[in-house]
Amino acid sequence: MSDQNQENQRPAESAKPTELEDMLAHAAPDSASDPSEIYDGLHVGDVDEIVEALENGEIHRVRELVAHMHFADAADLVERLSPDLRRALMLAAYDVLDADFYTELDETVREEVVEIIGLDAMAEVVADLDTDDAIGIIDELDAHEQLQVLDAIPAADRTLIEEGLAYREYSAGRLMQRAVMTVPQFWNVGETIDFMRQIADEDEWETPNVFYDIVVVDPRHKPVGTIPLSTLLQSKRPVPVTEIMHERMKLIPVDMDQEEVAFLFRQRDLVSAPVVGDEGRLVGIITIDDVVDVIDEEAEDDILALGGVREDDLYSATLDTTRQRFSWLFVNLLTAIMASVVIGFFQGSIEQVVALAVLMPIVASMGGNAGTQTLTVAVRALATKELTSTNAMRQIGKEILVGCINGIIFAVLMGVVAWGWFGTPGLGVVIGLAMIVNMIVAGLFGAIIPIALDRHGIDPAVASSVFLTTVTDVVGFMVFLGLGAWLLM
Amino acid sequence: MSDQNQENQRPAESAKPTELEDMLAHAAPDSASDPSEIYDGLHVGDVDEIVEALENGEIHRVRELVAHMHFADAADLVERLSPDLRRALMLAAYDVLDADFYTELDETVREEVVEIIGLDAMAEVVADLDTDDAIGIIDELDAHEQLQVLDAIPAADRTLIEEGLAYREYSAGRLMQRAVMTVPQFWNVGETIDFMRQIADEDEWETPNVFYDIVVVDPRHKPVGTIPLSTLLQSKRPVPVTEIMHERMKLIPVDMDQEEVAFLFRQRDLVSAPVVGDEGRLVGIITIDDVVDVIDEEAEDDILALGGVREDDLYSATLDTTRQRFSWLFVNLLTAIMASVVIGFFQGSIEQVVALAVLMPIVASMGGNAGTQTLTVAVRALATKELTSTNAMRQIGKEILVGCINGIIFAVLMGVVAWGWFGTPGLGVVIGLAMIVNMIVAGLFGAIIPIALDRHGIDPAVASSVFLTTVTDVVGFMVFLGLGAWLLM
Repeated sequence: MSDQNQENQRPAESAKPTELEDMLAHAAPDSASDPSEIYDGLHVGDVDEIVEALENGEIHRVRELVAHMHFADAADLVERLSPDLRRALMLAAYDVLDADFYTELDETVREEVVEIIGLDAMAEVVADLDTDDAIGIIDELDAHEQLQVLDAIPAADRTLIEEGLAYREYSAGRLMQRAVMTVPQFWNVGETIDFMRQIADEDEWETPNVFYDIVVVDPRHKPVGTIPLSTLLQSKRPVPVTEIMHERMKLIPVDMDQEEVAFLFRQRDLVSAPVVGDEGRLVGIITIDDVVDVIDEEAEDDILALGGVREDDLYSATLDTTRQRFSWLFVNLLTAIMASVVIGFFQGSIEQVVALAVLMPIVASMGGNAGTQTLTVAVRALATKELTSTNAMRQIGKEILVGCINGIIFAVLMGVVAWGWFGTPGLGVVIGLAMIVNMIVAGLFGAIIPIALDRHGIDPAVASSVFLTTVTDVVGFMVFLGLGAWLLM
Repeated sequence: MSDQNQENQRPAESAKPTELEDMLAHAAPDSASDPSEIYDGLHVGDVDEIVEALENGEIHRVRELVAHMHFADAADLVERLSPDLRRALMLAAYDVLDADFYTELDETVREEVVEIIGLDAMAEVVADLDTDDAIGIIDELDAHEQLQVLDAIPAADRTLIEEGLAYREYSAGRLMQRAVMTVPQFWNVGETIDFMRQIADEDEWETPNVFYDIVVVDPRHKPVGTIPLSTLLQSKRPVPVTEIMHERMKLIPVDMDQEEVAFLFRQRDLVSAPVVGDEGRLVGIITIDDVVDVIDEEAEDDILALGGVREDDLYSATLDTTRQRFSWLFVNLLTAIMASVVIGFFQGSIEQVVALAVLMPIVASMGGNAGTQTLTVAVRALATKELTSTNAMRQIGKEILVGCINGIIFAVLMGVVAWGWFGTPGLGVVIGLAMIVNMIVAGLFGAIIPIALDRHGIDPAVASSVFLTTVTDVVGFMVFLGLGAWLLM
């Protein structure tokens, strides 16, 4: 109880909280009264404490607080601070932060942080990281910054990182950890365990810190099987490794797209999988933690693309966000003008029956929404490979039927409303017919557009919705106003 | 080369492929010519072969082909078949399928499959599964089906499953595996390894098949630390377990929501985490493979909800899909009618200046799209806990500014277009001003609506967009037509 009071008495960031601010202060799960109920790593109390220390210039307290945080929490904290406080915190405490802190940071924030702490400090951080994480960070730097950071890294590590950077972006080669625990085919369980104990003290770049599977390799370094550590531990010492290894393991080609890697891990519930290069030789291993990041990214990309946003711009500067969002809005303006041109054809009819202008957005809106439902299901099913050539025709047929049934129901509903509203039964017939046509069109195009884009190698999440709304707007206005002009004039 | 020819000569499902079908046949990545390039588990060749065998009634060939597939591939296959072929395949081959096949199936398809093979066969399957997977399957059955399946399961397993079912749905208790590899505090590495070898032959319900961490427990069965298997294997036999264990492990309360569990695993890159019940006693362990499924589900739920779809209905019957989509479209109809009522207020103005009717959808559409961009970023940031009370006010301010800047740019663009199109400079001014107002409103509400819904415990992904489009439509029509009536009459 006294703890809670103490928290309430902390000065708020703003002196006089308005009602809106008060509402927002409760908007996020941080402020849940029972911290065990909802966990999000950081608690408002911790953030307040550090913000207070930063504002009062208490460098030692800041350093102490940050040093005691988990690196993932520290990354969340730094992301949430305002740019000024972020700068103050990094300058005060960058050297007490774990190297992994930098891998957890959002890209945009990390760029800012690199500028604050400088390239020499970054080089030290990178040298402490696993190859895959080091590559991820170096890859985002400018060419001259990359050289400067690489120069400051010990030669052996540098070679590994440079090799990693040579693989195509978004490929398995970029995701993988270079250090793999391998044993030859002719060993047994006892020899394997002894070997692992023996190399535990060696240079960390050569042996992985944490691993889940051991890869059995032939003399040409080709993987012949994998052994989960739990199987190894549950086997007797004299058992040959070939007897307990999984031969039906999944090998990942080094140039496989990360999306395919994620699909494979999910479909097979893998925790790690060996990566092979030319001639099937082992070059690295991918572990589930990196794949979880990919799964997150892919889902995020789809969500954002469907909403017309190119990348997560939460931490971007206002002008960058404005610029990034502009292009999508510009495309939308063109399609909106196209729809207006269609309306323009029917100016005469609208002047005579102004009710047409009042009702026309309903037809377009219902088509757009029905189409978006279909499109969302299709985009998701394409991403998870549930929608394939085997069932595509069946799905399109189903969507047309769904559009048809719902179209008829809404035609009756809206027909009655329009009749009652304007007292003209003909208007009810016109909007009803237009509704049926547009909802069938919405179902058809909502399914076909993403499938066709996918077939042409275009990400259906990015481009589908602009095509769809163009179709449902143009068809909606055209059919409704056309029928109106024909039946009501 | 000869292999490829053979595949091409296989008879297609439909006798005369139309151009559309031909396009669709290439739509999915299955048909990539180089199978190593794009992996999706199943290949068109395999599917064709089984479909052919099913259609020819060659039961033995079907059984043989299915028996050689990985269970995850078999699940994908069964999902993609038409209902008739699905039935034929299950009847022919259900007893050669691995129990895990059933956990991989989509819910809707699984219901169908349970009906085909019957509850006795399902009981056998469930008895072969890990507790968490068994619970997942039993949970979806009707109450009387649950009893029948549970009755057919050996008593010891039944108790564990019944205990699991008692935990709240979507809680950590449902995700966890009951069998945990535990050791007492006073053991050393050697004793631990010997113990694991010794219990390897015991009943599988009591010992986990695959595990990644060992949990060190005190005499009251409270976890005091975890040891990754790789650490255990790299330690010498006499080292006490307390010396190598991680004491700063994350303990998961058994009633924690699965969303929070997923957040924790992602934020801390966990592979497994102990679950504790009353008084902090160990009750189970959650492993990453189950969390990956949760991450997928959560992302899918958000994508679908933003698109106005309640659940993935790819495999649902047409009528079920129609019914599920109806409710969202009905809500949308009401908001569209509301917008039309606003237009109705200005019928007189539209009759005088019909250009207002032509241009009005542009203002509403731009507001809707700009608002959706903001909303998408906010919904995603709330889901990943990047948007919290610490930065909510800053984000809302930023979105208003972004809306203002883009609003001014599009106001100028569209103002010039409208002036040129209708030759009335006043019309350009009206649409320009309306555009600025509506895009600022879109930024403000696109950010505030999801935050406010989240604060009230409503999933922002589900309900935000309907509120937003209502606001942008009503404000868009009202401001544009209102300004038009005021300035142009």
